[in-house]
Amino acid sequence: MMRVAILGASGYTALELIKLLLRHPEVEISVVTSRQEEGVPLSAVHPSLAGRIDLGIEHLAPDQIAERADCVFSCLPHGVTASLAGSLLATGLRLIDFSADYRLDDATEYATWYGQEHPDPERLPNVVYGLPELFRAQICEADIVANPGCYPTSAILGLAPLVQSETIATDDIIIDSKSGVSGAGRSPKLTTHYPECNESLSAYNIGRHRHTPEIELILSKTCGKPVEVIFTPHLIPMDRGILTTMYSRPLTAVREADLFELFHAFYAPHPFVRVVKHLPATKDAAHTNFCDITLRVVKGRVLTISCLDNLIKGAAGAAVQNFNLMCGFPETMSF
Amino acid sequence: MMRVAILGASGYTALELIKLLLRHPEVEISVVTSRQEEGVPLSAVHPSLAGRIDLGIEHLAPDQIAERADCVFSCLPHGVTASLAGSLLATGLRLIDFSADYRLDDATEYATWYGQEHPDPERLPNVVYGLPELFRAQICEADIVANPGCYPTSAILGLAPLVQSETIATDDIIIDSKSGVSGAGRSPKLTTHYPECNESLSAYNIGRHRHTPEIELILSKTCGKPVEVIFTPHLIPMDRGILTTMYSRPLTAVREADLFELFHAFYAPHPFVRVVKHLPATKDAAHTNFCDITLRVVKGRVLTISCLDNLIKGAAGAAVQNFNLMCGFPETMSF
Amino acid sequence: MMRVAILGASGYTALELIKLLLRHPEVEISVVTSRQEEGVPLSAVHPSLAGRIDLGIEHLAPDQIAERADCVFSCLPHGVTASLAGSLLATGLRLIDFSADYRLDDATEYATWYGQEHPDPERLPNVVYGLPELFRAQICEADIVANPGCYPTSAILGLAPLVQSETIATDDIIIDSKSGVSGAGRSPKLTTHYPECNESLSAYNIGRHRHTPEIELILSKTCGKPVEVIFTPHLIPMDRGILTTMYSRPLTAVREADLFELFHAFYAPHPFVRVVKHLPATKDAAHTNFCDITLRVVKGRVLTISCLDNLIKGAAGAAVQNFNLMCGFPETMSF
Amino acid sequence: MMRVAILGASGYTALELIKLLLRHPEVEISVVTSRQEEGVPLSAVHPSLAGRIDLGIEHLAPDQIAERADCVFSCLPHGVTASLAGSLLATGLRLIDFSADYRLDDATEYATWYGQEHPDPERLPNVVYGLPELFRAQICEADIVANPGCYPTSAILGLAPLVQSETIATDDIIIDSKSGVSGAGRSPKLTTHYPECNESLSAYNIGRHRHTPEIELILSKTCGKPVEVIFTPHLIPMDRGILTTMYSRPLTAVREADLFELFHAFYAPHPFVRVVKHLPATKDAAHTNFCDITLRVVKGRVLTISCLDNLIKGAAGAAVQNFNLMCGFPETMSF
Repeated sequence: MMRVAILGASGYTALELIKLLLRHPEVEISVVTSRQEEGVPLSAVHPSLAGRIDLGIEHLAPDQIAERADCVFSCLPHGVTASLAGSLLATGLRLIDFSADYRLDDATEYATWYGQEHPDPERLPNVVYGLPELFRAQICEADIVANPGCYPTSAILGLAPLVQSETIATDDIIIDSKSGVSGAGRSPKLTTHYPECNESLSAYNIGRHRHTPEIELILSKTCGKPVEVIFTPHLIPMDRGILTTMYSRPLTAVREADLFELFHAFYAPHPFVRVVKHLPATKDAAHTNFCDITLRVVKGRVLTISCLDNLIKGAAGAAVQNFNLMCGFPETMSF
Repeated sequence: MMRVAILGASGYTALELIKLLLRHPEVEISVVTSRQEEGVPLSAVHPSLAGRIDLGIEHLAPDQIAERADCVFSCLPHGVTASLAGSLLATGLRLIDFSADYRLDDATEYATWYGQEHPDPERLPNVVYGLPELFRAQICEADIVANPGCYPTSAILGLAPLVQSETIATDDIIIDSKSGVSGAGRSPKLTTHYPECNESLSAYNIGRHRHTPEIELILSKTCGKPVEVIFTPHLIPMDRGILTTMYSRPLTAVREADLFELFHAFYAPHPFVRVVKHLPATKDAAHTNFCDITLRVVKGRVLTISCLDNLIKGAAGAAVQNFNLMCGFPETMSF
Repeated sequence: MMRVAILGASGYTALELIKLLLRHPEVEISVVTSRQEEGVPLSAVHPSLAGRIDLGIEHLAPDQIAERADCVFSCLPHGVTASLAGSLLATGLRLIDFSADYRLDDATEYATWYGQEHPDPERLPNVVYGLPELFRAQICEADIVANPGCYPTSAILGLAPLVQSETIATDDIIIDSKSGVSGAGRSPKLTTHYPECNESLSAYNIGRHRHTPEIELILSKTCGKPVEVIFTPHLIPMDRGILTTMYSRPLTAVREADLFELFHAFYAPHPFVRVVKHLPATKDAAHTNFCDITLRVVKGRVLTISCLDNLIKGAAGAAVQNFNLMCGFPETMSF
Repeated sequence: MMRVAILGASGYTALELIKLLLRHPEVEISVVTSRQEEGVPLSAVHPSLAGRIDLGIEHLAPDQIAERADCVFSCLPHGVTASLAGSLLATGLRLIDFSADYRLDDATEYATWYGQEHPDPERLPNVVYGLPELFRAQICEADIVANPGCYPTSAILGLAPLVQSETIATDDIIIDSKSGVSGAGRSPKLTTHYPECNESLSAYNIGRHRHTPEIELILSKTCGKPVEVIFTPHLIPMDRGILTTMYSRPLTAVREADLFELFHAFYAPHPFVRVVKHLPATKDAAHTNFCDITLRVVKGRVLTISCLDNLIKGAAGAAVQNFNLMCGFPETMSF
């Protein structure tokens, strides 16, 4: 039985994580922390957990956590985890980080996109990116994993087979993503105020969303050369779900059937990617750890469409998947 | 042509008011104010107004407003209008107040429910309640009108004919109201954060919502004796609309047909109440100044159902209706 | 390992049932049937099941089902299960019926409310009503169980302790229910067409909803005298969730604290009812088998509010709970 | 005063049209028809019209219509209007057609995309496409106008200035559109059943949506050479609104400021296109006849985003705009 601590337990990804872990036969949630909610029962912050878990929220130092846990899931904001990682790892804890702190491999790039110095630049290039479909072997060996962003997961899974197989040009990729509102987190602001975003639809952060370098970096790693993408996120009036529509240009003429074969082969060893013939809806993958992917060739262009639940496969589910691999449990345990 | 000023122009009711007044053939919007948004173009706060009105938001004293306007619509928060009303009226301006400041007629009651001393207690008992279906004559003569609350409008219109005609007991009335989220205003908070209230439904402020004394006071006025109600508001995942389901006990046996006759007669002179046979949906009245009402007799109990758009008939539309009556324009002008 | 058959597998309750049973450690889904979808893979009807279950939809006779299953969940329409129950039970199969066929105990009453003769009137009065919080002992012994309606579950759980303890008058009960749209099933019709019910709210079937006699019958059984209720259902623009607001009149003065004590004691042995102090939201119970209940005393009246997921605690979850009891598994298994 | 007839009055675009025309000072709605709803009061089909218009639905022949109207708005399905157009025009009626029957200019192309022979192939190439921002002069002279599709309006307005000015390559255009559900019409089907499309998001008709040739044809006309586009529509869980994100490749390097200048100049004479700096939301244009457009240059690619209300600027509003031009009324009358 692994004892796990969840840092930053007041948000949506932490809530989903807790629900998944409550079903995990090899896990006991032993610690939940939140600076703002210290002293409050967990079920007061998340009423859906009433009667399911009886823990109070604490605010603890790394060595206190280490006394009561074997593994840490950190749902803390960008910048905070990286300032704690060294102390946490020094105690022998394993760490799965939901923030972007260890997703890029270059501190300068991090500073450019996240507007602050990286607190732990030496470790940065050595942390594995927690996308099991690409880096399972390294994850199995890791004591710290950078859990991927929700948009990047949807985009990378949709493009990796094409990029790695050198099927498409790496400088002509358009990623048009649509996300439900839970992706923006639990802090109220005008853009996510119900009457503002309900019955409405808009693009945001065009050309400057922080997930852009993450997508480019990981795709570059899969093919060994620079990949450049245009990434446009949109806010959709629904709770959860991301659908990403990707447009790429094949280097030579391609047939749809061959692309399906490529994807089927690529994802055959991966239980959470479903390559489907029909056009998937986000609802098909909602509340699951699946990413559904399909392909079309239109006027010589390759269209890939991927769907996932941003809180599960895009966050908490991927984290549990990583946790299972790090601990030697079956990858699908608790799902 | 009446020049009108809108105070507190950054909220949702102000936005709806502006849209209505832009269509009003006898109105020129000459002033818009907001303390927080001073100096900002109105269309930067409300992008839907781009190209439709070219005004900057100001922060002005009453005498400055009086120089440039003939009538004031105040969308300021509770407590603020009442501290300004004296000065505004002294300049000869007419005033339509969206807040609750002049809806009750007793300063002690006001202090109990609104948690602050009333800033203008002498004027309080003399201000007409701006529900034209009950107080049209007084509104026509008024220089200040207290625009009704959204829930009270839906409840009072559904019950006034029953209470006034002494059809029902006045101490056994249940009002179960359901409202869209725009009724909570434009300030972001957790309860109106999209992922909290979307795909969810809850009751709130049971037994202590501020609209309770307003409903009881006005219904009491219509029949000359105390009326007591149980009022339960619910938050519904939609932008706009209130549906109120009312349960009352007839003093003697009643027939549905007679009740319809009563309501038809009561509302015949009133263009914005539609007494309908079918069960109305809030969408029927959305974006209009109508209140739809129907009746059923079930197991000896009278059920009344009313529907309206909380931002229009429940706020901005009622205000324009009052404005028309105060200025001698046709009641339906601009709708 | 129990082999289970699911009849009428194309609807929403069947889908939720399948998801729950896929997680059940003692169950193998061996048969799924649907007359209309015969020959189609189950995952073609429910794309969310892709990769999770590999079954084709069949159309089978009772004895064919009996060869391959030990227990049947019937999600067939009203009237159909009752015409099959005899044959199914004769083979030794156990049966959990989602329809209303065995919820009432009188064939005349059934004919009045469901507009057809009851196909199996002899069995009708002897079938246990599958609400474990009231009838657990009988359910444990049963070979056929009538799974309760979604509205009745929310109303009965909120009123049973009050009625059984003779706290409230049994002829002055108002039940104002609000339900998400999935309760209306999966067949497209105008009232559940997205642009009709989205951003709208309405009451329906006032005074004549079929769940009325079901609520009255079961509450009467809990106290041994006739109970009469006014039941008003409303359609809410959300997928799932029922919130029921109940108004009753205490026979003598009551204190809120005593009522909470009553409810806590009543539901202490029942793992899926959470008596809570706060006002619950349907989202707290969504995707779970919980029913959240709270109480308020307002102006001498008792208000009870209950929340549940209509597809889980209001249908598929209750069915699995019943199944567990019938088979001797822990009541909470698979949740 | 123009007397107008509305054919096919039971759908959503007809309803919006009626609401607009009720506000039009120069219009009297004299006839409403529907084959299925013959004999029914208009307000029984559209309860929101109760008390606003008192007309019964009829089923009339062209010459009967001509006796009582001066102009016809046809909201009939594809194929039907074209079979009536000749008879209607022969009586001297003017005709604004909401269907796709006269949007393409080639009967073979029509047959390919709409699956039926064109009933009026001679007239087809001579009917003006009713997009006033491109064809105002011809519309002013026309007796029949093909009202544009909703997606094409959003795409063409976003691309026409770029194509006409030869700023972008005409064979490398990606149009990623997102639409609310009302665009699918009022006939219930599974894909628009509330629990299917609520809280979900999907692409549909990839590479084969009928609006593709319409977009290509009209854009080709603006620049005199073939234009090829990839058009991907998505269904969004909201009532109304289209947001279209367009990606094109400039022929030479471009600056964002120059593109804004181009668009400002292009749309200066057009009251219903708002070129805006911010990223527009569909809600800004909801319930209005505006199309909001903005531009960004990202990594050398031009991104255009347009927003409109599919039922207004994408259908009924455009029709009234065309009507105003055909009749010599101010283009903005009734808006």
